[in-house]
Amino acid sequence: MQRILRINTATREIVDTPVAGDQLLLGGRAMTSGFLLREVPAACHPLGPFNKIIFAVGPLAGTLVSSANRLSVGAKSPLTGGIKESNAGGMLAYKLGRLGLRAVILEGRPAEGDAWQILHIDARGVRLTHAPPELAGVGVYEKSRVLFAKYGARAGLALIGPAGEQRLLCAGVTCTDPEGIPSRYSGRGGLGAVLASKGIMAVVVDDSAAPKEKMADQAAFAAGLRQVAALIAATPQTSEVYRKFGTSAMLSTTNALGALPVRNFSRGTFEKAGSIDGSALYNAIIERGGEGNPSHGCMRGCLIKCSNIFPGKDGKAVVSPLEYESIGLLGSNCGIGDLDAIARLNHACNDMGVDTIDTGAAIAVAMEAGLAPFGDAEFAEKAVKGIISGEILSRVIGSGAEMTGKILGQYRVPTAKGQSMAAYDPRSVKGTGVTYATSAMGADHTAGNTTRLQVKQTEKQGQVGNAKKAQAGIMLLDSLGLCIMLGAAVKDMSLIIGLVNARFGTSFTLAEAETLAARALDDERSFNRKAGLGPPSDRVAEFFYLEKNPDSGGIYDFTPEDFLELTGGR
Amino acid sequence: MQRILRINTATREIVDTPVAGDQLLLGGRAMTSGFLLREVPAACHPLGPFNKIIFAVGPLAGTLVSSANRLSVGAKSPLTGGIKESNAGGMLAYKLGRLGLRAVILEGRPAEGDAWQILHIDARGVRLTHAPPELAGVGVYEKSRVLFAKYGARAGLALIGPAGEQRLLCAGVTCTDPEGIPSRYSGRGGLGAVLASKGIMAVVVDDSAAPKEKMADQAAFAAGLRQVAALIAATPQTSEVYRKFGTSAMLSTTNALGALPVRNFSRGTFEKAGSIDGSALYNAIIERGGEGNPSHGCMRGCLIKCSNIFPGKDGKAVVSPLEYESIGLLGSNCGIGDLDAIARLNHACNDMGVDTIDTGAAIAVAMEAGLAPFGDAEFAEKAVKGIISGEILSRVIGSGAEMTGKILGQYRVPTAKGQSMAAYDPRSVKGTGVTYATSAMGADHTAGNTTRLQVKQTEKQGQVGNAKKAQAGIMLLDSLGLCIMLGAAVKDMSLIIGLVNARFGTSFTLAEAETLAARALDDERSFNRKAGLGPPSDRVAEFFYLEKNPDSGGIYDFTPEDFLELTGGR
Repeated sequence: MQRILRINTATREIVDTPVAGDQLLLGGRAMTSGFLLREVPAACHPLGPFNKIIFAVGPLAGTLVSSANRLSVGAKSPLTGGIKESNAGGMLAYKLGRLGLRAVILEGRPAEGDAWQILHIDARGVRLTHAPPELAGVGVYEKSRVLFAKYGARAGLALIGPAGEQRLLCAGVTCTDPEGIPSRYSGRGGLGAVLASKGIMAVVVDDSAAPKEKMADQAAFAAGLRQVAALIAATPQTSEVYRKFGTSAMLSTTNALGALPVRNFSRGTFEKAGSIDGSALYNAIIERGGEGNPSHGCMRGCLIKCSNIFPGKDGKAVVSPLEYESIGLLGSNCGIGDLDAIARLNHACNDMGVDTIDTGAAIAVAMEAGLAPFGDAEFAEKAVKGIISGEILSRVIGSGAEMTGKILGQYRVPTAKGQSMAAYDPRSVKGTGVTYATSAMGADHTAGNTTRLQVKQTEKQGQVGNAKKAQAGIMLLDSLGLCIMLGAAVKDMSLIIGLVNARFGTSFTLAEAETLAARALDDERSFNRKAGLGPPSDRVAEFFYLEKNPDSGGIYDFTPEDFLELTGGR
Repeated sequence: MQRILRINTATREIVDTPVAGDQLLLGGRAMTSGFLLREVPAACHPLGPFNKIIFAVGPLAGTLVSSANRLSVGAKSPLTGGIKESNAGGMLAYKLGRLGLRAVILEGRPAEGDAWQILHIDARGVRLTHAPPELAGVGVYEKSRVLFAKYGARAGLALIGPAGEQRLLCAGVTCTDPEGIPSRYSGRGGLGAVLASKGIMAVVVDDSAAPKEKMADQAAFAAGLRQVAALIAATPQTSEVYRKFGTSAMLSTTNALGALPVRNFSRGTFEKAGSIDGSALYNAIIERGGEGNPSHGCMRGCLIKCSNIFPGKDGKAVVSPLEYESIGLLGSNCGIGDLDAIARLNHACNDMGVDTIDTGAAIAVAMEAGLAPFGDAEFAEKAVKGIISGEILSRVIGSGAEMTGKILGQYRVPTAKGQSMAAYDPRSVKGTGVTYATSAMGADHTAGNTTRLQVKQTEKQGQVGNAKKAQAGIMLLDSLGLCIMLGAAVKDMSLIIGLVNARFGTSFTLAEAETLAARALDDERSFNRKAGLGPPSDRVAEFFYLEKNPDSGGIYDFTPEDFLELTGGR
């Protein structure tokens, strides 16, 4: 039986309720957004007692179906002021799924000054215990070492870094991967600050005593699982491109489109792209050997293995993973064209517990404001690492590009709804630009990216429709707990619905799933409208409307009327 | 003939148009808000080319009618993201009025990196000239010395400090008083940052060659002027209380009501109130003598003289004026109970060019976050003075309480619409609390203060109506260019309308003026709604709804439905 766990962090009351009916079909983002709309007053303070932070997994979590163990984390965002969901890989969703948990909802707020807590979940039950005092103020790598020593290597962790403890607006929640590395980030929107506001420093999930699950139709489930594997193997994008280059395969594409962020979105093509693209990354990993690995899986059962372990010249791991968005924002967008410097910066962001995207965008804004020249990796690393001691500049940077821009009086700040853009220029990939403006999530590439469509990307015509379709598709994936990468191999999601039915003995249809996913998109817009983020907030930073991207020639030319097709004016 | 001057700061085009019809009646806030609604796209970036900054005076500006020479400054606010008007005394409105100018509208935006400009206006015309290089990065006291040396003592100045140059969100625009002291601040909402974004460092207005004005009905005008003077003289509040204690007369009232902000709005009564109230201030000025003056007029013609010059122990002027809001926010709200320390802090805020209200609130938030203990005046002064060298902490503080709270991960941040509250606790003076939530201006006491009403201030009943009436009344004063203090003496505004008619030969009625003022309030709400600040933004910080003020026993208990009577749900 699948259950939802509800924990009041003020009263310490714990309630465990079964998942029934429709709720069995979708989980993940549809579930976090649905609960938030129904239970959280939209106008509440994100760090106050009325907000909730919700961990939710998809209907196949806990199984070995490839790429089906994403963890959604949702809350009202302290960064955007709107609804937020950010999902990541790692081991937590798998372990929650093995324990039969579809969602964990943290409510209320402990008194100011109460000790940090660890939320511990295993087959015997749920406990809130005082965190070991040595956890406070240290990075997530050290935190995870302490926690594994205490709870054993079979535990899966979700935790916050010093940025979360300081409730910075770009603090993330990270999960450990199969090797126990705590770097699978739900990085966007400041969810780490919300977890901190609940007094929770880490969630420890131990599934070692979980009973073996009996599928409703074991044979059908096994057949479906094999079919997913076969599709991944038969699709070059998943079995070759992603496995070899991971997400960084994207860089040469965006660089060619003039869509790579370069020096605070002032250009779309980077003169050092060849030093930081997928091939450069792959070659460095292979040549250096040692602990390096170009094809690393971030969760149990994954056959795509788009993650990697990036080694230094000495072969020792520097960071895992090193991904396209981090390279784009911490690299080219800061004028930094050196993978080693970017990897160190990425590791520092991970360790401090901040979103690499918003942090990279913030550093570039600070560079444009004159705090350091573009390309100054030393400044960037010092700014990030200063979070641990609460340096004010570091807190500003860790509060994201929007806040950094305001503090430094800047006009060119690449955000939408207060959140920095991912590594796609909205003038050069206009469909993604439409998503940045219209998604309830803010400037989030994972909310509906159109970069891989075979269309003229700077052409306005048709892009609102493309974005609408992409947003609907990604909501379905996010709500089924699926990795976005799987979409390249599994085109017909009926296969996934069949697996859900084989697991639970249900008879859901893809049409039902799509209807619920569409409703979840509506839920998100409803929440935002009630939070004060209605249609006037559906826009990107003004400079994109006025400055042509010199490399793509694109300009952001969407009007509020253009978006009606997608938003219905709501 | 009254005229409106329109200057495009990008093209340097200057257009001068006559004021006609209805526009002759109201000026000030009704004019700035009307132009903003009609001409500025509400969703624009406040520091970008689409925003405009408008200086507007009332219909009696340039005459010697007491208290009728306020200067309204309006723009889309970088602090709130909504419409903003902030008015102050000083000499600029008088001089603009003498030159026949009802408003000066600055549009467009010069190219990044263009030299700072001085806007010079006299009877011969209007010129934009390069600012002397030594003006950049220095405080307003030094700036005004340089400008008076260059333009002569007959000039009136409006200028920005280093905070404005850095485009901080709480940068104000200050005007010089009759003695040339540059400390009459349109402090709220970051208007100094907007003026800076237009490349303008100072506006110099010289009326020395202005022709003598011929009133349409000189006898009626003189009679009305005398009648205003007689009412001021016959009203103890204006002729005695304000003249002796100025605005600081308010402190003992709010302290008694439990409405004085104390240590980041954690109490409403201050144990050191007796050291900083109106009597303490008056006695210190009288005892110290020297340059001190308890009854100083900030503009030509003023008979109330609520301003003061506060001297140090050596008799030398420390700051002028030292007002209630500054004492409340920089003083009790920071736990500082020493007038000398508060006066130094106030001078530092003036010199840097930041709003004392939002800066005081920000310092208290930083103190609560642990950056310094409450009462640490040295920390506070260093934080403010650091603006001149662009210290990051100082930039954060100068960006106001809302930003400081976000950067420091704080929950208890006393703001509405992103702007910090003035020195009235919204739980203890509930009518003013309603204004904080519902005014388009954010948490602004001058938008409709009900503290002087003879009602039970912690009682909810009737307060929405009280606030509505106060908001309408203040809009009329603001749009007639009148000082709020005059309202205590002149109860029937027909007298003022009569003066307008005597000046221009018109036949306006008070009813017409009230209709236009009501329309201006609608204009402001319309602008905000289009800017994305609709009804969901009509609230105060969450903690006021949850924490009782321990001294008044009041809690903030208004719901969105309660406000419908005032807002009509728009």
